[in-house]
Amino acid sequence: MPTYKVTYFPVKALGEPIRFLLSYGGVEFIDDRFDRANWPALKPTMPFGQVPVLEVDGKKINQSMAICRYLAKQFGLTGKDDWQNLEIDVAVDNINDLRTRLGAAHYEANEEAKKEKRKVADELVPFYLERLDAQVKKNGGYFVGGSLTWADIYFVAILDYLNFMATYDLVEKYPNLKQLKDKVLAIPSIKAWVDKRPDSEC
Amino acid sequence: MPTYKVTYFPVKALGEPIRFLLSYGGVEFIDDRFDRANWPALKPTMPFGQVPVLEVDGKKINQSMAICRYLAKQFGLTGKDDWQNLEIDVAVDNINDLRTRLGAAHYEANEEAKKEKRKVADELVPFYLERLDAQVKKNGGYFVGGSLTWADIYFVAILDYLNFMATYDLVEKYPNLKQLKDKVLAIPSIKAWVDKRPDSEC
Repeated sequence: MPTYKVTYFPVKALGEPIRFLLSYGGVEFIDDRFDRANWPALKPTMPFGQVPVLEVDGKKINQSMAICRYLAKQFGLTGKDDWQNLEIDVAVDNINDLRTRLGAAHYEANEEAKKEKRKVADELVPFYLERLDAQVKKNGGYFVGGSLTWADIYFVAILDYLNFMATYDLVEKYPNLKQLKDKVLAIPSIKAWVDKRPDSEC
Repeated sequence: MPTYKVTYFPVKALGEPIRFLLSYGGVEFIDDRFDRANWPALKPTMPFGQVPVLEVDGKKINQSMAICRYLAKQFGLTGKDDWQNLEIDVAVDNINDLRTRLGAAHYEANEEAKKEKRKVADELVPFYLERLDAQVKKNGGYFVGGSLTWADIYFVAILDYLNFMATYDLVEKYPNLKQLKDKVLAIPSIKAWVDKRPDSEC
């Protein structure tokens, strides 16, 4: 069994899908959360100066979605064929586009530009959620193929961060996404992780 | 053999990696370029209102990187194992982060915010290119595993768009990336595509 270590800020955000997948896989991992004050010193030691980073037997890898796809292969959470894996990747990238738009507004330092970006995000959120909700409805309660894949786990794991940036509960009005959230959070290995993880704002 | 159709604006940008991969695969495809004036009418017919879209036997799929990963599997351009595929995905996502930062500056409408974003991008470009160049050097002239994968094709195909947004030639000072570019553009199927494709600014 390889040794796994997740290094990230002391938040859920982009690290949480990795932690969810490792928990689902039933493997031990070091949950290395560093203090924000230490980031300038740590940054040069990280590939492309980024976190989250996963270390597998000491090999450091950045890029959270690529890491999640790799872990999904190890833990049987991929699709049944190339086309289903394409559909999973598309779902994850669509969710990530929503994150990027919410982030563009949330992290914009210029007040005037922030207002513009918030307007764009506010229009885009229902556009995306309607389509994601319809997709889950059409596919028997999951994003792809009528059974659990890493797209479902990715969405539920990153939802707290999306809600934090949006400043409201994104899935409240979307029954299929809400059910998916409840279903994923009821998986015993995921529930055990959520019960024991440190509290954080986002 | 499935039928392929690529629908996009009349530019290279995010559509070009898909066109490169289809050309490399030696399959026929419809290169459907629509006039910008028609976009408002077309947008609602596209999944998540986005292009490029690939149609495979009439099934429409958005998300260019997911599409490229799928095509790479069909055309033998993936890695030798899960770890190499992880490294390929990480390389592509790192390249895409560079694109996102350049795009944040290029597409910012607010002049003051644009200046700030251009500054961030200008600092980030050499940081990324040094690391990408070192990676290609270390891996025998390719991003991963010492042989051609879709990460190499993705990079070279999207480079014109990155250069357009940066307003200068990104790889000029990076010999390993420059050699990789020349090598990919010398592949006969890619060369034939580049020779016959319509001219476009980006």
